[in-house]
Amino acid sequence: MNILPHALEKLIEAFGNLPGVGSRTAERYAYYLARREANKTHQLAQALQELHSGIAYCPKTFALIDANQDVSPLYSDPKRDKHIVAVVAEPFDIVALEKTGSFKGTYHVLGGLVSPIDGITPDELHIAQLIQRIDEDEVTEIILATNASVEGESTALYIQQQIGEREVKVTRLARGLPIGVDLEYADQITLSRALEGRQLL
Amino acid sequence: MNILPHALEKLIEAFGNLPGVGSRTAERYAYYLARREANKTHQLAQALQELHSGIAYCPKTFALIDANQDVSPLYSDPKRDKHIVAVVAEPFDIVALEKTGSFKGTYHVLGGLVSPIDGITPDELHIAQLIQRIDEDEVTEIILATNASVEGESTALYIQQQIGEREVKVTRLARGLPIGVDLEYADQITLSRALEGRQLL
Repeated sequence: MNILPHALEKLIEAFGNLPGVGSRTAERYAYYLARREANKTHQLAQALQELHSGIAYCPKTFALIDANQDVSPLYSDPKRDKHIVAVVAEPFDIVALEKTGSFKGTYHVLGGLVSPIDGITPDELHIAQLIQRIDEDEVTEIILATNASVEGESTALYIQQQIGEREVKVTRLARGLPIGVDLEYADQITLSRALEGRQLL
Repeated sequence: MNILPHALEKLIEAFGNLPGVGSRTAERYAYYLARREANKTHQLAQALQELHSGIAYCPKTFALIDANQDVSPLYSDPKRDKHIVAVVAEPFDIVALEKTGSFKGTYHVLGGLVSPIDGITPDELHIAQLIQRIDEDEVTEIILATNASVEGESTALYIQQQIGEREVKVTRLARGLPIGVDLEYADQITLSRALEGRQLL
């Protein structure tokens, strides 16, 4: 016998698809909404309904933009320096970098990282478009802001090869001790990177 | 400047309304859905859209039922003993009790607990309907399955007063040591309840 109404079970199942949401959490969300006025539920439903029709990809930077925008404001803004391009794996990496408030260049989203295990080849990433931008916008510096994973490293290597003989500085984010972490608590890899990348005072 | 598309920000805000979901978790959910095909997003949107139209309250037990059902199957099922009624605060408490598989009576959902602080008076709960059921269904036992909180205790007391002189046994769930918890780790209140409620072997 079904103890729960069908509509509630369907919702619990749908919530269970979200990352890190188990059946208990999904039940908690569904119960919460079932208990409230229909208001909050419809607000969430509508936001979901409009998500994919409301977002688009910038044809230059491949960042997420409003569907009614032509190009990302992070690219079209005259205050942004088009000669410096930070290359990131996912659109959401831009948010993290923008929050620092200390980067005034533009971005280029690869749409993933080269990963033979997951079957992602370089052709599927926006690397050709990056090379095109280097030529068109006279880019002087490419900051490879990919993760320090195997995939991140091999993607960075591939991009460097593609850039080839072009007159462009290729840099990457510094690896080292995060602010606020004591030496004794840092892991070995971070510490050895911090040693390698030591800087003159 | 908006870094994120408006549609994405709206969704993050809506997810943030769920219990225990902070801005980081809401972002994680929204990013996850934005990255997928629209499929999963629409599935969740539809489940939400249909939630409130798909559920109703049983007029006898006040349990949640499918909108097209007249009365809860937990009440209409001839196998359920209508003479024994477990009284719970919320519809979802039924799920917990049903999972034990060891209760064959029916339920009555109060729709809350008496709570002067939150302004919930006994009139707002389904207590009059419970008394009516006691008379109509010739109920022989009422199991007060409310929480052991101040609200739970005062609601139980109020119900007992309302039952008055009627020939009905009023019981409550046993309090004591949970299964698998060692004596040394039990809290004082639980332990003193376990002592009070000690049983003959």
